[in-house]
Amino acid sequence: MNVYADTAATTKLSAAALEEMTEALRDTYGNPSADYTAGREAKVALEAARYEIATALGCKTSEITFVSGGSEANNQALLTMAAIGLEMGKTHIVTTRMEHPSVQETLAQIKAMGFSTTTLDPDETGRISHERVDHAIKANTCGVCVMLANNELGTIQPIHDIAVHCSIKDVLFFTDAVAAVGRIPVDVDELGVDFLSLSAHKFGGPKGVGALYTREGIDLSRVIQGAGQERGKRAGTENVPGIVGMAAALSDKDEKMEANRAKTEGFRKILIDLLSDIPGTTFNGSYDHALPGTVNFCFDGVPAEELVKALDEQGICVSAGSACHTGTAAPSKTLLAIGRTEEEAKTAIRISVNEDNTEEEIRYLCEQVSACAARLRRP
Amino acid sequence: MNVYADTAATTKLSAAALEEMTEALRDTYGNPSADYTAGREAKVALEAARYEIATALGCKTSEITFVSGGSEANNQALLTMAAIGLEMGKTHIVTTRMEHPSVQETLAQIKAMGFSTTTLDPDETGRISHERVDHAIKANTCGVCVMLANNELGTIQPIHDIAVHCSIKDVLFFTDAVAAVGRIPVDVDELGVDFLSLSAHKFGGPKGVGALYTREGIDLSRVIQGAGQERGKRAGTENVPGIVGMAAALSDKDEKMEANRAKTEGFRKILIDLLSDIPGTTFNGSYDHALPGTVNFCFDGVPAEELVKALDEQGICVSAGSACHTGTAAPSKTLLAIGRTEEEAKTAIRISVNEDNTEEEIRYLCEQVSACAARLRRP
Repeated sequence: MNVYADTAATTKLSAAALEEMTEALRDTYGNPSADYTAGREAKVALEAARYEIATALGCKTSEITFVSGGSEANNQALLTMAAIGLEMGKTHIVTTRMEHPSVQETLAQIKAMGFSTTTLDPDETGRISHERVDHAIKANTCGVCVMLANNELGTIQPIHDIAVHCSIKDVLFFTDAVAAVGRIPVDVDELGVDFLSLSAHKFGGPKGVGALYTREGIDLSRVIQGAGQERGKRAGTENVPGIVGMAAALSDKDEKMEANRAKTEGFRKILIDLLSDIPGTTFNGSYDHALPGTVNFCFDGVPAEELVKALDEQGICVSAGSACHTGTAAPSKTLLAIGRTEEEAKTAIRISVNEDNTEEEIRYLCEQVSACAARLRRP
Repeated sequence: MNVYADTAATTKLSAAALEEMTEALRDTYGNPSADYTAGREAKVALEAARYEIATALGCKTSEITFVSGGSEANNQALLTMAAIGLEMGKTHIVTTRMEHPSVQETLAQIKAMGFSTTTLDPDETGRISHERVDHAIKANTCGVCVMLANNELGTIQPIHDIAVHCSIKDVLFFTDAVAAVGRIPVDVDELGVDFLSLSAHKFGGPKGVGALYTREGIDLSRVIQGAGQERGKRAGTENVPGIVGMAAALSDKDEKMEANRAKTEGFRKILIDLLSDIPGTTFNGSYDHALPGTVNFCFDGVPAEELVKALDEQGICVSAGSACHTGTAAPSKTLLAIGRTEEEAKTAIRISVNEDNTEEEIRYLCEQVSACAARLRRP
């Protein structure tokens, strides 16, 4: 049996997205900037996609900028926050120890520009306390950056509560929602954020395309320079078929959100129940504040990379570490942040499923994890 | 009759690219960074595409970095040139007045970092003299940036001759080959460049993907920060289906290069012959050093935007101005650079065809340009 259980790393293209993309790739070939029929048709497709995405996020179309993916969106949000901070003479940013590398690396770049940061540790479930964010905001803080849901643990942060503090203290708030969009309802006004990033391939859309929500009135800094596409904020001929695919995928997820969520939460319950029964198992994350389909476990004495390989031989795809950028042998910073030792962190496996899986697959997966872990466990 | 004659703005996806992309979108869903079968399959597809592109350009696979398109590639090449220049204390760059906005805007950003530039004017055909580039190189010059073929005129620059000077004087040389790749043979060693950019949608590949060639030994600066994809030089999950489509499109163009070129040069000859017969016409560009399918003409007294609209009504897509970013009413900088007045520049039309067109289409296009120009001409 083949079980794809690494949907947090990437997802299969949804049927809705494949259909729309294939059509756009074939027929919508014009350059959206061109002032003739083929160009206008492409422009119409582009703006229809923008409308769909804005509708899903509860924002205006003018607040959506199309980019090449989650990393670029995260870079652009943070560089904009820093540019606005510099203008106001505020050079401090509050963040967490669990952010994605595209956030951490950009913050390192911003620190090299003279900024300081306060990096908050989560509690043992991976949650960031909104009170601690509040306490970390100083007179020279320009912004706060806390991801909506963690990509490794699935832990969901109290974004709305954090946003209230940010609003009172008049600092910008950016949330990386790449792991969350398409899995749980995401509405920018309910969350109260100023910037929000998403990546199509995390919710059934294509790779190579993402979007950045920026609250009206904020002047976005450019990452890619050039001609005037995307209101002058992101140069380059727009990836129309990719954007159309992203919109189709998001609309599809949005429509089926409650059913998908219920089904996937059912799978998560089975995963937690059955995997917790394996001797020497530690659950990593939050039982209550979590994405529906993501679980993370340490298997004492079982090297994660060996377990991933053994499961692969049984047709099962899961990930060790953060998995959208495996290949690094370093232990996960997120697991260290929630209190695991380096040794423990190297035994952590992330299993992330969605509504495309079946209960039969989930049970097979648990059996195989149990069998492989028993075989691989070192005394 | 429908005639798409704006292939310099963007091209239809080639049959080869559509087939490969559709398959990759459906089946090659894994994250190339993931260490299990689905991930490794994606990695194999990614590296096979890299091999195809490196083969077409005559370089090593390790010299190819996949990016989101021509603009990002141009940004990254120039920012790398500037970073290397800063390290050596060399803060002068030689360029031309005809570069793409993604080059010009990045150079403006680099000037804000303290660099100076020498911006060379072309001759009346749009050619940059290699001797003038040589004379412009100073003791503190770190690099030269001259596009391979101009996107508006089709004029091809003496890249190899310029490269010889750059090599002798030990300065970096970047050529934006976005308009050229797929239309004429492009081999990085024959050209002698250190950086070369390309964009898939200009040669029958998909929008939203491009590549940057960087000569071995040059340490590329990052534009998108994050995880370690693309040897740590470009973060973000790789757009595998887009990259596969780009490689398929380029291989297809490469295979049929001579036949496509002969056919398209035939069309160009007809276009030049027939359009030159229209009264009040001025040819813009070079007869001898030009892309096979691109022509640019001024039609005295005929506002270009009106002519584009009139032709659109006859089913014909051509562009006014630089066209991959129309919408700006400003006269083309390229046309001003070759000596046209502002008034003349506003009457310029670019017609860019390729092997997908037919002679019948080309003749129909010429008839319609003649008829529409006569009708629209202002005394």
